[in-house]
Amino acid sequence: MLHLQSESQLRWLRQVDTSLDEILVDHAHCEHKAAATAMSLFGAYVDCEELTREMTVIIAEELEHFQMVLDLLKRRGIAFRKIRPGTYGRKLNLLVRQNEPQRAIDRLLIAGLIEARSCERFKLLRDHVQDPELADFYGSLFESEARHHSTYVRLARQFASADEVRLRLDELSKAEAIIIDEGHSLPRMHS
Amino acid sequence: MLHLQSESQLRWLRQVDTSLDEILVDHAHCEHKAAATAMSLFGAYVDCEELTREMTVIIAEELEHFQMVLDLLKRRGIAFRKIRPGTYGRKLNLLVRQNEPQRAIDRLLIAGLIEARSCERFKLLRDHVQDPELADFYGSLFESEARHHSTYVRLARQFASADEVRLRLDELSKAEAIIIDEGHSLPRMHS
Repeated sequence: MLHLQSESQLRWLRQVDTSLDEILVDHAHCEHKAAATAMSLFGAYVDCEELTREMTVIIAEELEHFQMVLDLLKRRGIAFRKIRPGTYGRKLNLLVRQNEPQRAIDRLLIAGLIEARSCERFKLLRDHVQDPELADFYGSLFESEARHHSTYVRLARQFASADEVRLRLDELSKAEAIIIDEGHSLPRMHS
Repeated sequence: MLHLQSESQLRWLRQVDTSLDEILVDHAHCEHKAAATAMSLFGAYVDCEELTREMTVIIAEELEHFQMVLDLLKRRGIAFRKIRPGTYGRKLNLLVRQNEPQRAIDRLLIAGLIEARSCERFKLLRDHVQDPELADFYGSLFESEARHHSTYVRLARQFASADEVRLRLDELSKAEAIIIDEGHSLPRMHS
């Protein structure tokens, strides 16, 4: 359902065990970036009514999640701060084709794949962390990420046939799996 | 209260009379741009908690207004489309000082002045247009613009003393009044 072609590795859970606080701070940044991505898509395709309606919903949800993560950090005494981003998003964005409508399709599908990966990681966190508050928190979030994934894939079909979208999603999810397998030494939500 | 140093001229109301449909289309774009500005401020000052909380509220409200304007256009049979933007926002943004914290102060105060000008224009529309649906619509919107103006001015005080903010707001509102007095041949919400 999530169109992911690799499962996150034990390597990432080792980063979770040693650097959970930093991953939580990165999570807040991820929620902001997800909202900013949706706003950017809104602006690029402002005359596509279904897209702007869906982006309005996603932006509000991601910003709400950002505030929820900030509250969680505060309760745990972790200072929210700017941190060096990982390379996951940047590597994915290099795959975007530059001409329309391919650009729209790729931007939407990549946004959808990031949601799918977040969904997988939230589920991993829910099942892995010992802390019940944290497990509950990640359990409560992963369903909306799955929904956002479906929304982005559906919106891509406004710009191409279902077959074209499926083929491109398959290509991009293969590339995404390679990027995830490469990992990153900084402990991040998508490292 | 709105810190505006000029009142919109009859010239603009003549544009309203001859090109109301185009001004309504521009209004939808203005709501999107207001949301995008708030998102950009959110990202630039993501570690300023009060700012991100307020931006979350403003973004949601502006996107809701965008949808309200789209619905209004639809009811009136006006096609929403991309249009050439006016020069108001661009001219204002040239006034932003580049070093922090001056940059933050200027971006916030300019966002606040745009809200104030929108507020003034919405009130003018409410009192000028004959169409009761439209008059009600603009009557319902102008209060939130005034509130956003106050929020932006208050947030600027997170980056400088109240005196500094007052002095800079006075400078910027003088410049804004000159830009508005110059006007623009394209009929726009801020022409």
